[in-house]
Amino acid sequence: MNDLKTRILSLVKDELVEIEAELVHHLNPHLDLVREVAGHILFSGGKRLRPLLLVLAARMCDYRGDYDKTFSISLEYLHAATLLHDDLIDEADLRRGRPVAHSIWGNATTILVGDFLLARALTIAAGTGNIDIIKVVAGITENMSQGEIHQLSRKGDLSLNESEYREVIWRKTAVLFEGACRSAALLADASPDRIEALSTYGVNLGLAFQMADDLIDYTSDTQELGKKAGADLREGKLTLPVIAALQAADSRDHARMASIIRNPSFTTEDFEALKALLQHYGGLAYTREKAREHVRLAKEALSKFKPSETTGILHDLADFTLQRRA
Amino acid sequence: MNDLKTRILSLVKDELVEIEAELVHHLNPHLDLVREVAGHILFSGGKRLRPLLLVLAARMCDYRGDYDKTFSISLEYLHAATLLHDDLIDEADLRRGRPVAHSIWGNATTILVGDFLLARALTIAAGTGNIDIIKVVAGITENMSQGEIHQLSRKGDLSLNESEYREVIWRKTAVLFEGACRSAALLADASPDRIEALSTYGVNLGLAFQMADDLIDYTSDTQELGKKAGADLREGKLTLPVIAALQAADSRDHARMASIIRNPSFTTEDFEALKALLQHYGGLAYTREKAREHVRLAKEALSKFKPSETTGILHDLADFTLQRRA
Repeated sequence: MNDLKTRILSLVKDELVEIEAELVHHLNPHLDLVREVAGHILFSGGKRLRPLLLVLAARMCDYRGDYDKTFSISLEYLHAATLLHDDLIDEADLRRGRPVAHSIWGNATTILVGDFLLARALTIAAGTGNIDIIKVVAGITENMSQGEIHQLSRKGDLSLNESEYREVIWRKTAVLFEGACRSAALLADASPDRIEALSTYGVNLGLAFQMADDLIDYTSDTQELGKKAGADLREGKLTLPVIAALQAADSRDHARMASIIRNPSFTTEDFEALKALLQHYGGLAYTREKAREHVRLAKEALSKFKPSETTGILHDLADFTLQRRA
Repeated sequence: MNDLKTRILSLVKDELVEIEAELVHHLNPHLDLVREVAGHILFSGGKRLRPLLLVLAARMCDYRGDYDKTFSISLEYLHAATLLHDDLIDEADLRRGRPVAHSIWGNATTILVGDFLLARALTIAAGTGNIDIIKVVAGITENMSQGEIHQLSRKGDLSLNESEYREVIWRKTAVLFEGACRSAALLADASPDRIEALSTYGVNLGLAFQMADDLIDYTSDTQELGKKAGADLREGKLTLPVIAALQAADSRDHARMASIIRNPSFTTEDFEALKALLQHYGGLAYTREKAREHVRLAKEALSKFKPSETTGILHDLADFTLQRRA
């Protein structure tokens, strides 16, 4: 498992160093406080998956310019902005093992620094000089905010089905991965079929990534997660492992699960009982299988491209989504 | 006083109808809930000053295209987004006499609908196909969020001086007025000196507008305001009327004012006493004079243009900022 991560990191280490430098360089706010709050979320051990994806997708399209690393950070700023707002909305305590921004600087500053980062992302995207790219980046934010609202509006609702879940995670997560690939291909002035192939890779990677993320909440402990286990359930977020298990459960177990889900102050014992039921009714296995299917579709989309070191890394990245522990 | 407003409205009524139609037409979210929340703030009797300014500035530059009305609403979406976030931050109860969005739909949805509107504004701006315009619009949001953070970080601080106050209101308010004029001139492909002249008009209009707004908090009552009188002070926002009066006050009155300002639960009697001191030490008159100076500068900037019906309306708009009661 660690072998895959090590291999990916060894192949992209130069890119990661450049991305990191750009992240620091382009965060030039008027106020030190903004830098401090934005820095708290930006420099807390994020994997830089989204900028990396953009840089690799540009390379797949033989991009020869020098704006890919700079542009790539707009997606990390966007991602950081949504994390600032989402942690506040979810009333989270910890993110990557550290106190969340709003617990240190308060809600007001956290909301506003999120707004600043959203705008900064668009300014950097505008640096590409490409209107289609701007539309992709602005569209990502439109979708992400709506995906989050959609999820919120169905909080604790046991009637949420798989198709609505898919729509939510598509907006919340996959659109950003798709947008990273699409905008990179646009930056490289790629042909329409390459743009579509990379977008298909991105969207499936994103769906697999979110499904794997939703699994982790039921398969990892607090220490591995860097946040409380069972957080999704405590927030009333019904994800695929639960949806699938509820669907398969007999009426007695459906009622048991429902009573745990409906009680936001469930005990550790309740949570363990729920996990056993997710296991028993195949909710975990089903989610894993669906995520694996999206990984397969992601890789398949790359078949339009000649095999290269870069296609190899993108294959590895897809496989890696299934192996994350946190 | 009402004559001026009536005259302006009669001259721009067709534009206002078109702007209103575009505001409805381009608010097409995926979720009804988003439309409902965004609609609550967007269709609550806003004056549409920012879109109107953009449309008039485009006309000053002989714009012949058909995207000005559509583009103009991006600034109203942006403005609405900041109102949603700011009301939450300021813990306001009322806006234009109606309960604020977060008191109806909660903080989470309000934050996210704000994010959606920010992104929607950029998507509409991207419809101009002009990268320089995108940079202006994204830059407005960067500045507004930072202006708000700046103001927050100096909350209740009696050492705030006029120059820092000016910087805050420039970012918070004037940048959007400036951006409306600048982006309109860019849309019309105007010459650099016309772009600068209109930007100068916009920034001075914005500064006058905010100063007048800050005066209103000390000269109108709750009914006129549609929100509680003395709200700025209750939120610890020191504005020019207070800054100027503190500067001029003798040590005994300085201490009296300070003790009222430092007590967020001051009584109506305290507030009346403070207003009397603002009057006595010329804080109100000084602010009025400064606002008047910016109105003069705004009008002066228009001297580069041949007098026309449109320059007349822009003159009237500048005069109108000083006459608002709410």
